[in-house]
Amino acid sequence: MDLRTEISSLGEFGLIDHLTRNIELKNVSSILGVGDDAAVIDHFGKQTVFTTDLLIENIHFDLIYTPLRHLGYKAVVVNLSDIYAMNAHPTQILISLGFSNRFSVEALDEFYDGVYAACEKYGVDLVGGDTSSSQKGFIISVTAIGEVSPDKFVQRSTAQKGDLLCCSGDLGAAYLGLVFLEREKKIFLENPDIKPDLEGEKYVIGRILKPEAAKDVIDFFEREQIIPTAMMDISDGLSSEILHLCKQSNLGCVIYEEKIPILEETRNAAYKFELDPTACALSGGEDYELLFTIKQTDYDKLVLNEKISVIGYMTSPEEGTRIITKGGNQFDITAQGWNAFTK
Amino acid sequence: MDLRTEISSLGEFGLIDHLTRNIELKNVSSILGVGDDAAVIDHFGKQTVFTTDLLIENIHFDLIYTPLRHLGYKAVVVNLSDIYAMNAHPTQILISLGFSNRFSVEALDEFYDGVYAACEKYGVDLVGGDTSSSQKGFIISVTAIGEVSPDKFVQRSTAQKGDLLCCSGDLGAAYLGLVFLEREKKIFLENPDIKPDLEGEKYVIGRILKPEAAKDVIDFFEREQIIPTAMMDISDGLSSEILHLCKQSNLGCVIYEEKIPILEETRNAAYKFELDPTACALSGGEDYELLFTIKQTDYDKLVLNEKISVIGYMTSPEEGTRIITKGGNQFDITAQGWNAFTK
Repeated sequence: MDLRTEISSLGEFGLIDHLTRNIELKNVSSILGVGDDAAVIDHFGKQTVFTTDLLIENIHFDLIYTPLRHLGYKAVVVNLSDIYAMNAHPTQILISLGFSNRFSVEALDEFYDGVYAACEKYGVDLVGGDTSSSQKGFIISVTAIGEVSPDKFVQRSTAQKGDLLCCSGDLGAAYLGLVFLEREKKIFLENPDIKPDLEGEKYVIGRILKPEAAKDVIDFFEREQIIPTAMMDISDGLSSEILHLCKQSNLGCVIYEEKIPILEETRNAAYKFELDPTACALSGGEDYELLFTIKQTDYDKLVLNEKISVIGYMTSPEEGTRIITKGGNQFDITAQGWNAFTK
Repeated sequence: MDLRTEISSLGEFGLIDHLTRNIELKNVSSILGVGDDAAVIDHFGKQTVFTTDLLIENIHFDLIYTPLRHLGYKAVVVNLSDIYAMNAHPTQILISLGFSNRFSVEALDEFYDGVYAACEKYGVDLVGGDTSSSQKGFIISVTAIGEVSPDKFVQRSTAQKGDLLCCSGDLGAAYLGLVFLEREKKIFLENPDIKPDLEGEKYVIGRILKPEAAKDVIDFFEREQIIPTAMMDISDGLSSEILHLCKQSNLGCVIYEEKIPILEETRNAAYKFELDPTACALSGGEDYELLFTIKQTDYDKLVLNEKISVIGYMTSPEEGTRIITKGGNQFDITAQGWNAFTK
């Protein structure tokens, strides 16, 4: 009898661990392989950083409420975010597309308008790719390439006990934007004549449809000569990413609910849907902010940067991964991030 | 009224030209962008080469007759072929997969067995990727990275009048392997009890299911200090690739039917299906051999290499792109290569 193990029994990260467990890097230029936001390759002292993402219609995006221009922009930005998460600067991208004949040349032009707008904004070149027909749906594969000064790249596994745990920007908004768009989609499908009023939700919708990558944070690190001790981007929700960073660094942590950066617009949107804003930040995802740790001695350098929040600190692994609520209660941080295989 | 231009009206290459017509490379490290087998990026004197491919179930492969192990092997090899086509050596790959829950962990293991076998054979490292669920079908995106000595990379656009036009290996077999597998599939679907007899067609089936990239040819060039004046890989059929090379080099050419390398096994398979072996070589595709031009003065260096055939020479563009048949007739070379958008 053939053995059949369901992929869902391993989960996405378990599956990646399983499939890559026997990899031994053989080329001397392969500095860092599977397991971080991006791979690092050495080219005679200069290091390059690589990452790739696959985006599939109706798994990662819904064209009912996603303008193709925004989709092109976002497909680039989410990959650049992985490059910045290595403390590197993106320089080039390659894009492959699969699409059925439901798409016209004008539709693809719109998508590429967004791609080029992102390239322009982040100073990267589109240097290659592939186009293909698909039987159904729109498939996007983006590979991003970046540069980093020798050994300045930052991994997930190198945080130290006592380091401050920080994040950039604000969290939870993209998830609420998605909740809002999903509701409007349902209303639209039931009654196509009702025009949605998106005015009050502009901020949260903007965060899901047109995210930005944290270039300014990496520029700030460079100016202030800060090198984070560990870093990753926040794509699956804060709690899931914190657990990754702790696991890979073999540490625990304490974070404070009141320190999690959530904007007024996000709170208001959450209350409208009777959701807890903190839960949206912890489990929402698609924020594309950075989660990173710094030495305590670097605290003075970033305390005045409004785009950076210190949300907690790293502890020994025995102390677990804990959140202290506004009411003073302590809980374990649990990962409820988006898991593509259980949806 | 919205304008709607069908993608099929442009064709794959017309579409790529259209979508990339306004690209201006801005990073000084971007040496060569869209329009060749791979992009070239400079890293402080050392140059790296990048290519990416998207493979979609039932467009690019059929799992009814493609073992997953072979598919993993082939997905890597077809990308390495693009790296070799730049006169470069592959060093790393990234792989992204999309798959539905129809696939088990064991099935993915088989696929990765093939991936790792190809990595081992060609000395490349798997350094990253992405996994994702898909609603339907198996989606593979591979990005390959290679190294080339400064300015040793070879483009498609740099052939000169009088250069010899050459190809590696033998052509047409992969197409006949596909024809054979498609016939067996039909028989199997009509009567699952009939066991196919593949013995006589081993060679042609091997060429479609488990192609190899032309590493030995690039190694040979290096040993003999030959730098082709132009080069590309043969993935869409010889005639289609010849027309690309002529167009991008702004030249014409003459090729001789009798010089096109076709093996006995391929001829026999063609006759079985009442197909013309030359037509299979010209229009078949999936050979993953190299098409290249060399200076006439390099002829002596390669005349003894049995893996290389001189099939013709480059002419001025006014002379057109011509094939001289065994019977002495002359015809225009026409592209009947696989066009993914008209299938």
